[in-house]
Parts: sequence; C-alpha cells; structure tokens
Amino acid sequence: MDRIKPRTLSGFMELSPEKQAQFEKIKDTLASTYALYGFTPLDTPVIEASEVLLAKGGGETEKQIYRFTKGDADLSLRFDLTVPLAKYVAMNAGTLSFPFRRYQIGKVYRGERAQRGRFREFYQADIDIIGDGALSIINEAEIPAIIYKTFSALGLTRFIIRVNNRKILNGFYAMLGLSEKSGDIMRTVDKLDKIGPDKVKALLTDELSVPSDAAGEIMRFMEIKGKTGDVLSALESYAGKNEIFDTGLSELKTVTGHLSDFGVPAENFAVDLSIARGLDYYTGTVYETVLPDHPEIGSVCSGGRYDELAGYYTDKKLPGVGISIGLTRLFFVLEDCGMLNEEVLKAPADAIVIPMTEELSPAISAATALREAGIRTQVYTEQKKFKAKMSYASKLGIPFAVLLGEDEIAENKVSVKNMATGQQETLEVSKAAAMIKAAITEINTAKAIKE
Amino acid sequence: MDRIKPRTLSGFMELSPEKQAQFEKIKDTLASTYALYGFTPLDTPVIEASEVLLAKGGGETEKQIYRFTKGDADLSLRFDLTVPLAKYVAMNAGTLSFPFRRYQIGKVYRGERAQRGRFREFYQADIDIIGDGALSIINEAEIPAIIYKTFSALGLTRFIIRVNNRKILNGFYAMLGLSEKSGDIMRTVDKLDKIGPDKVKALLTDELSVPSDAAGEIMRFMEIKGKTGDVLSALESYAGKNEIFDTGLSELKTVTGHLSDFGVPAENFAVDLSIARGLDYYTGTVYETVLPDHPEIGSVCSGGRYDELAGYYTDKKLPGVGISIGLTRLFFVLEDCGMLNEEVLKAPADAIVIPMTEELSPAISAATALREAGIRTQVYTEQKKFKAKMSYASKLGIPFAVLLGEDEIAENKVSVKNMATGQQETLEVSKAAAMIKAAITEINTAKAIKE
Repeated sequence: MDRIKPRTLSGFMELSPEKQAQFEKIKDTLASTYALYGFTPLDTPVIEASEVLLAKGGGETEKQIYRFTKGDADLSLRFDLTVPLAKYVAMNAGTLSFPFRRYQIGKVYRGERAQRGRFREFYQADIDIIGDGALSIINEAEIPAIIYKTFSALGLTRFIIRVNNRKILNGFYAMLGLSEKSGDIMRTVDKLDKIGPDKVKALLTDELSVPSDAAGEIMRFMEIKGKTGDVLSALESYAGKNEIFDTGLSELKTVTGHLSDFGVPAENFAVDLSIARGLDYYTGTVYETVLPDHPEIGSVCSGGRYDELAGYYTDKKLPGVGISIGLTRLFFVLEDCGMLNEEVLKAPADAIVIPMTEELSPAISAATALREAGIRTQVYTEQKKFKAKMSYASKLGIPFAVLLGEDEIAENKVSVKNMATGQQETLEVSKAAAMIKAAITEINTAKAIKE
Repeated sequence: MDRIKPRTLSGFMELSPEKQAQFEKIKDTLASTYALYGFTPLDTPVIEASEVLLAKGGGETEKQIYRFTKGDADLSLRFDLTVPLAKYVAMNAGTLSFPFRRYQIGKVYRGERAQRGRFREFYQADIDIIGDGALSIINEAEIPAIIYKTFSALGLTRFIIRVNNRKILNGFYAMLGLSEKSGDIMRTVDKLDKIGPDKVKALLTDELSVPSDAAGEIMRFMEIKGKTGDVLSALESYAGKNEIFDTGLSELKTVTGHLSDFGVPAENFAVDLSIARGLDYYTGTVYETVLPDHPEIGSVCSGGRYDELAGYYTDKKLPGVGISIGLTRLFFVLEDCGMLNEEVLKAPADAIVIPMTEELSPAISAATALREAGIRTQVYTEQKKFKAKMSYASKLGIPFAVLLGEDEIAENKVSVKNMATGQQETLEVSKAAAMIKAAITEINTAKAIKE
C-alpha cells in the first residue's frame, strides 16, 4: 500500500493525552464558572454563510478568513464567537428573554501567518450579557467578579483585572479639543506598557501633531495610578467640564463600588486609564486581565461594554457587555511558563484492575463495582507479564492498581496498590472503592494552574 | 446601514437555550460514561490536510467532503473521527501506551443533500481501544457494557444491543462456497428488517445467483434467534467445518460469557446474525443498538472490531475496537419522538436574586454567597417592575427566586420563593443556600431521556 505521512497542520494545536487532560481541566473550569453566574451554554455552527458572517465587513481580518464554496454556497468558518452571537440574538430576539446571558466555548479559525504561539484554530471562551434596548451598569460591575472567580478557580492568585471606561477617555479628549484624534491617541497611549512614556509623548506630538501642552496633559492623566479610591479622587478633579466624562466617572464609581459585594479583593483589581481595547466597538467599561509576573503574555481575558451588538442584522438596539478568553493561547503560554499544575490527574483512569489468573470474571466484576462507585476504571486484559502490566499503569500515571490473584479471589477481596507510595493492602471491593474514591476526590482538588 | 438578513445554514443544528441545555446533558452523560471506562479525551483539529484525510480515498463520501484551498494548502474538514484518530495514533505510536483508549466527542462535516433529520455539521461521540500488534478479545466483550451503561445513564431501559461476529459470517459463507459473494450477500441480508425474508431470498437467488438450496441455508441461518444460550447452541451445530467460523463462534462465546460480569442484563442484549456493519473494515465482533419501540430510528450506536486502524499511514499493525454515537441525529430523533425529558433543568440559573430596593449591595452579597455554595445564580438588576422581574424568572424556568426587600435586609435574611410551588419562606442566606442546593441536586438526578 502507498503510505501517506501522517501530519497535523501547522498552527493547529493537537495535544498528547496528558496535556489534553490538563486542557480539559481548564476548559471545564471555565464552563462551570461561567455557569455559576447564570450564563446558558450556546453552540452555534462553525460554518456560516459568508454574507452573514462578513456582514460587518472583515477589515484587516478578512484575509485571514477561511472562505470557500460548496456547490453554489459561499461559506466561511467563524473567526470569533461574537458575530455568530449577534446573528443568533438578531434571529431569535422574539423568543429570547432579556437580559440574555450566554457562554460559548468553541473553536474559531483565522488563517494567520504560522508563528510560534499563534494558532489558526483556537478556542475562545466567551460570555456576553445582552439587553433589549437597555442594560443596567450593574452588569458591567459583575464582570470583574466573573473574571476573578474564573482565574481563582484555575488556581491563580497573582493576576490583576484592569478596568477603564471609554466614556472617561472620550470625555477627557473632548476637554482637550482632541475628539477627532482620540482613536489615534488611544492606540498610541495603549503602547505605554511596551515603549514607555517618553516615546509615547514623542509619538503624540510628532506623529499625531498633538500640541505639546495637551500631550503633557495626556501624560499626566495617564500617570493617575494607585489604589482605586485615590484614582477616583484624582479623576474627580476633572469632573464638571464634560458630560460624557462625568457619565463615565459615575459608571466607574458604580463598577468599583460593588467590587467587595461581588467578592473581588482589592489586590486583584486596578483602574488603568491607559487601556482602551479596540477602537469603535466598545462604548463604556473595558477590561483587561494581566499576570504581573508575566507581562510578556499580555491580557489573558479582555472585553467591554458595547451599545450595538447586531446593528448590521437588525434595527433592534441590543447593548451588551462581554469578555473573552483565548483559551488555546492561554494554554500555550501557561505551558511555556511552566505554570500548568502537574499534580492534576492526567491519567485516563483512577484505577486499573489487573487480573493475575486465567479466569477474568472476578476482575471484571471488581471493575464493574468500582465504576458503580464512580471510579474511572480500566481492566487490563492483554496477555502480558505482571511487570509489563504494572509498567503500563505506571506510565499512564494511574493512581491505583487493583490486583486480583488466586488469594484475593479465594478471599473475595482485592489488593489495592497505591502507585505513588507503593503501599498495598488487601480488602473487600466495597471498601477498596470507598478508599480509592476518597483519594481521587482529594487529588481532584488540584487546580489547573500552579503559580 | 444596509442590513443583512441573519440566518443559519440548512443542515446545521442551532438550538434554543432550553434545547441546548438538554443537548448538553446528553453530551455530558456520554463524556462522563466514557471516562468511567478509562477512556482519555482527545481533541483533534477540525481541519486536516486533504492528502492526509483522504489517504484512504473517500469513495462515496468524497463528494460530500468540505474541501478547499487556503493559500497553497489543500484542506478538508474531517468527515468522521476515525481517520483523525488513525492519523494521531500513527504519528504518536512511539509515545502512546497501548492499549490506547480514547474518546472524542466532536463535530464532523458532510455536505449531504439537505433533508429533514440529515445534518451537514453533526457531533459524533466515539470510543476506540487500539492495540499494538494485538488486542485481547475481552475488549470486544467490554463494549456492550459501555453501550449499556451509556444508554442507561441517559435514562433508557428499552434498548437492545445487537451483536454479531464477522468471522461467523465469513466462515458460514465459506462453508457454502460463497466467499466471493459474501460482501453482496451480507449487504442483502442486512435488509431483512426492512424488506422481510421472502424478498431477501428472492434477491439472493435472482440478483446474486445464489443457488436456491444455499439461499435456503442462509435464510435458515438467519432465523437463528432467541436467547443467547439458544443461539450459541444452534451455532454449535455448524462448528467443526470451517476454522474461521469456529474462531468467530469462540469469540462470540467469550463476548457473551462475560456480559453478566460486566453488568449487562440479558434483556438488553441479543445475538443477531443478520447484522454486518460496513463491508471491508470490520473483522470480528460488530455492534448495533436499537430501540425496539422505535425501529424507524435504526441503530443509535454502532461499531465493531477492526484489524488495521492506520494501514494507509504506517506499517505498524494497530487492531482495535470502537463504537460511535451520532449525537446530533440522536438528539433530533429523540426530540422528534417526544423522548427528551422535560424535567431536566433547562434554566440558565438555579436561583435568581431579585433586589426590591434601590440599594443593590445586599442582593449582590447574597448572590455571591449562593455562588460560593455552588448554586448557579443570576442577579436581576434591570430597572423593571417586580411583576416583570418575576415573569423573567418564570419564563426562563429558574426554580428559585431569592427576594431582598427592606424587611429582609433589616433582618439580614432573604425570602426564597419556590417558583414551581409558589411556597415562600424567609431565612438566613446560608440556610437558603443549603435548601436550594438540596433541591437542585434532587432536580439534577433527572435523566436526559424519558421513555
């Protein structure tokens, strides 16, 4: 037979079973945390009509889109989960209850240039809250709580949720008479972390022709940092000059004012006036999440408030707020930084039943009993030497080997070997099940990430 | 703005939030049952190089494949989960431990003619056990146990796992001197359920030129039915004439002999000599699963033993056994038959906290406490009348409304209203959490399917 060399396309993450188990742990944690906040799971198609998916125009990303024809249909693979959500809500607005809270964790596709850490197929894990005509600011206040709970559940303690409000920025630039240049200025100021204040100021004056005193004002504004209360006080000194600014400040106060009710510790939160996130979509609160020990990673969870989810599909006003985690990239950088918790159970089974006699019935019955107790159990039935069987269990990292030799069968018991400690004891199956179950429950408290 | 009419492509299932919750329940049940048997989750890409995906040749399905170019790459969307598994195992054979047991639940793509109940994007939920060079027959015996556990966990009791062995058929046709026609004969006999024995016999003699007495022998053979013990006895009378037949019969005895150890009740199992499943792939035990009350659905879980998983990628011999559930179609037919259990909790939240004062902090704190207790909780913060808030909760089917008015706040308590019974009581948040948690745990014992 002519053989084809098996390969996986570059830019497509395909994991070993052990790594996949770690990935699943993260994915499951995101799903269960999102669900805890009353978001309902959605699962829209990967393929959409190009006309629908590109209704807004793809802009810079259009070249990256996987677009093709099948028969006479012009089709595209989704490049994010927001456009399919907009389509879904516009189509189903008559039957959905608003606010509509959904989460979706799914693969999206972008034909980017192949590069280390860049993926062409990757998971996004999104939540959005969509209002019908209006949406209370409290929803914007709840988002940091969800981010906090999500990353805490993953095992992180050292992360900072950075929050800003686009109305504050828009109002501030209006005060300076720079409304028309505000987009370009935000883009430049967004580089503060990367290139530092001197270069940002130079770019503002030289490339954007911002007057020197206004550039100075901008730099002073961006230096407003520190505890939330102090930042709010400093912002107060700009109040009363521009209505949009004042609205933004009021919104920011509401968002920060409910943090402790929502259970977000002060050390995981910061107002950061330099962040803007995207330029024409967001209209209110914006969010980023950074790991202070790993600034090179950038934001691991971003989003914000928008006024028009689906303007290109419907005349219904659908404001919302949402965040997105680039799960595939997050997994890649966590692995790269050595932050995946190796104590997470990566084995395909909690217990492996190893028969040591010709007769397999007692082993199979024992496995059936363990499974009834909720223990993930494999029966090893290949004709191999005992050593090879134990080596298989060990290589897979299965925590418990359950041995059935003639003695055990005669006594109607099993011998349970703890593969980590080497300890072995002989006991009744029901007691073995209880013991293994308790140990596995303990092991499964391990979180996905280790700092 | 020019508006585009939002639509979802035909042949692509996109569910309402309520239906999606029911779908998720089924998907989660499959995943957890598969995991219980020691299968590890894999997640291969949706897109593969066409050369790799079509290594075997697509045959009849080749026209259905979504194939396109991006840059100079010739790409295809996976049309099943078996070819990607073959690729994965061939690529990683050096590092995997065998037997390699994996499950995968993922979307696959086939551009079939649009038709009611036919999908172009659909989930398959597969398990496979792959051996390195050899694989014990006990793995084939375990499969009915997995099928039984899976459908029981979904809530079904009336289903029958039908088993046959291709070696028995091959041996039997060899005895009749019909080996060369065996493929065509199997295809014809496979129609027994649909067209009845007279027409099958006519097809055998008229179209396949099977001699009349041989056709009679075949029909008599296919009439062997009933209890497993009786079928095995009847098959014994054919033993000793053909080696392959005898091997098949011995395998069938092993498979059926361990059913009770594996916990499979006799009433959910039947040897059925008429089933063959695919014509050149399977080499040993084959499986189908049918619902006797709904014969029109056909098999809802099928598979079998094969000798060569990845012959087109590697010279390594990789025998295996696997089954597949067409999840999207299963969901469609269950809904169509009215068999989805409407008692499954379809709401996005277990509890909705409804503040009845201007001050929201107590409501947010109560929600935070409920979430800490693992209760999926939404805070309703829109400015609406009380009646509208309750109507929202009711429309979403959220089981508990947690009300915070001035009295509750003054007493540091909450009022919990059971939305189904209308009963309401005022109690401390911690007690409310315990009460709601217990009720939700009870509700969540509801299985996905109701017969």
